Amino acid sequence: MAEENILNKIVNENGEENKEDDIVTPWEIASSSEKGVDYDKLIAKFGCRKLEKDHVTRIENLTGKKAHPMLRRGMFFAHRDLDIILNHFEKGKQFFLYTGRGPSSGSLHLGHLIPFMFTKYLQDSFNVPLIIQMTDDEKFLWKNNTTEECKKMAHENMKDIIAVGFDPKKTFIFTNFEYMCPPFYENVVKVWKVVTNNQARSIFGFTGEDSMGKSAFPAVEAAPCFSTSFPQIFNNKKDIPCLIPCAIDQDPYFRMTRDAAPRLKYPKPSLIYSSFLPALQGAQTKMSASDANSCIYITDTAKQIKNKINKFAFSGGQPTIEEHRKLGGNCDVDTSFQFLKFFLEDDEKLEEIREKYTSGEILTGELKAMAIDVVTKVVLEIQERRKHITDETLNEFTTPRKLDFDF
Amino acid sequence: MAEENILNKIVNENGEENKEDDIVTPWEIASSSEKGVDYDKLIAKFGCRKLEKDHVTRIENLTGKKAHPMLRRGMFFAHRDLDIILNHFEKGKQFFLYTGRGPSSGSLHLGHLIPFMFTKYLQDSFNVPLIIQMTDDEKFLWKNNTTEECKKMAHENMKDIIAVGFDPKKTFIFTNFEYMCPPFYENVVKVWKVVTNNQARSIFGFTGEDSMGKSAFPAVEAAPCFSTSFPQIFNNKKDIPCLIPCAIDQDPYFRMTRDAAPRLKYPKPSLIYSSFLPALQGAQTKMSASDANSCIYITDTAKQIKNKINKFAFSGGQPTIEEHRKLGGNCDVDTSFQFLKFFLEDDEKLEEIREKYTSGEILTGELKAMAIDVVTKVVLEIQERRKHITDETLNEFTTPRKLDFDF
Repeated sequence: MAEENILNKIVNENGEENKEDDIVTPWEIASSSEKGVDYDKLIAKFGCRKLEKDHVTRIENLTGKKAHPMLRRGMFFAHRDLDIILNHFEKGKQFFLYTGRGPSSGSLHLGHLIPFMFTKYLQDSFNVPLIIQMTDDEKFLWKNNTTEECKKMAHENMKDIIAVGFDPKKTFIFTNFEYMCPPFYENVVKVWKVVTNNQARSIFGFTGEDSMGKSAFPAVEAAPCFSTSFPQIFNNKKDIPCLIPCAIDQDPYFRMTRDAAPRLKYPKPSLIYSSFLPALQGAQTKMSASDANSCIYITDTAKQIKNKINKFAFSGGQPTIEEHRKLGGNCDVDTSFQFLKFFLEDDEKLEEIREKYTSGEILTGELKAMAIDVVTKVVLEIQERRKHITDETLNEFTTPRKLDFDF
Repeated sequence: MAEENILNKIVNENGEENKEDDIVTPWEIASSSEKGVDYDKLIAKFGCRKLEKDHVTRIENLTGKKAHPMLRRGMFFAHRDLDIILNHFEKGKQFFLYTGRGPSSGSLHLGHLIPFMFTKYLQDSFNVPLIIQMTDDEKFLWKNNTTEECKKMAHENMKDIIAVGFDPKKTFIFTNFEYMCPPFYENVVKVWKVVTNNQARSIFGFTGEDSMGKSAFPAVEAAPCFSTSFPQIFNNKKDIPCLIPCAIDQDPYFRMTRDAAPRLKYPKPSLIYSSFLPALQGAQTKMSASDANSCIYITDTAKQIKNKINKFAFSGGQPTIEEHRKLGGNCDVDTSFQFLKFFLEDDEKLEEIREKYTSGEILTGELKAMAIDVVTKVVLEIQERRKHITDETLNEFTTPRKLDFDF
């Protein structure tokens, strides 16, 4: 167990989060710093690796494409065994992508889009199958919704995800409640067998007052890392290794999975982790679907986006124009600039904006206008695709069937 | 939670079994008394009810048939809410039977047959559907077998169970690994949600060193109590109540289930509990498949049965013929007499044997000969039926399909 550092806790001995540190768990993100989570500290704490410039270059060489802005700008900043999956790909062998999300009521917001937009880039660049898990069971276990409500939320979220532009020939999307089947369950049980209650408590901070379901659930998020959970999708091919693009708060699940994998004679999943898209109010926390003013939904109109950014986006600028011209703005804490960093494709333009905002040449209002332009473009494109996504589209993506690859 | 007495522990505060008491858990049976487990004490400890003569009479009246010997002789001795299920039946409404077992390598033994023989009597008398769960996942979690080995054991055990004489039109048998599906999983998750880790620890004695799977499993044994786990079988009819015939060591699972049921708006399962068939060596423990000398397998030849009973069956007789004639034998501790009590149908004959053995008129050798006759007859009948049970028969029983009732 040593290598994977399964005891590299997110909670301390008493099951409490260390007060000085940022809080980053699958259920909570909070930082006391204006700049948000200290990701270098998090890498050390979780025991994953920093994603280096060399990785970006190597991915560009392997795919023959320019790296995604979120990759070249370090929004995807950490990994586990990325080299192993790249070596595998270099030898002409297949891997698959696995990502997912917990259903939320209402539509997705920009923060939810990050891993899916990046996943689409990976899928297009490497030309690999993609598995997307919707954890409607997790939602049911953690929240006060019925199973039917959780499934319905998942369906609406799935349509939003499909609108990012996924190809049904290459993508299988499922909810746990609806897909649960013998091969999937068998992998869940195999993971259950090799992780103790003490380990689960140590990794996730579960207590005696938590439900049995919370303790049982992590294996359900782990099982899709193993291609045998999807015999129809992968034409019964075993041991296809897996790369998971996701936000770093999901690391506890995959630390557990990577410890379990060798004991089950399965390949360990590789991971590539993103930082969090800051809430409009700033980087102390991430966008949260349950706080409408913290986020931009993909259903927001151009006018709503404009109003929200103008009204709520935390500014790194100075209190007065005079001071701003003199002292300049702080891009590191400015939400509008962070949005541009995630969504503006043009590197030179971004650098120019950074310089001009830092020097005070650009005012906060001007920076916000640019962020509004870029974000509106992203959202409207998704809205356009979303219009054409019906229950039939969803059915196409969720039917277990062989994907369009030579397995 | 009070009514069901969920905290009526089988372990004490420190997670240890109380040393003075018999040990009766789903995983271990042991008594320090020659007479075996003190069942009255167990009823008080578990918080279930004694099965009364009135129940036997009422069942005879409702079914128009003489009660099964194991019922009229008190081998089935305790219950939970038996009256509720009988009231339901009296109103002309349907219930279903649910029982099961953990797969074992090798064939079943006589002790395994008890709940199944009794279940067959209940099914025939009440004319009700029957669900049989094989916990191949439990076997995998608790023992050192592969999933494939566990499934294979389950298949062989299922054939043995079918040989008790079940009707495929009225009976669905499944293994958890092979049947797991969305409606079943949804009920598992619903049970998970309403039982805390503390409660599971208190009911089952799980510790931090136990696997996550052991803690997750009880809900998988609970879920078949709810007819919605089997939409095809019950033609989507909901809320059909359930009666579970089983040995009393399974009570912890169903105490938990009965606490969970009202919170899930499901009917509580009713239960009817048997005592244990003693090991050949005596009532301090039950027959154990892992100790070949403790039990009579349903594959044993007439000669093997004769040898085992003659050689190993614990005798309540006296050391010498002279003493035996003078003092008589003790039926309460005599394994051969216990076998007759379970398997000899004729009440008068049994009473006659009891009197003659107690008075010393019958010697141990003669009593053993009678037990050999009766046991051999039971075993050979099953062997005869077992010969005709093929993979096709098994397939018939395990295919999810509407059973032959007016649902």
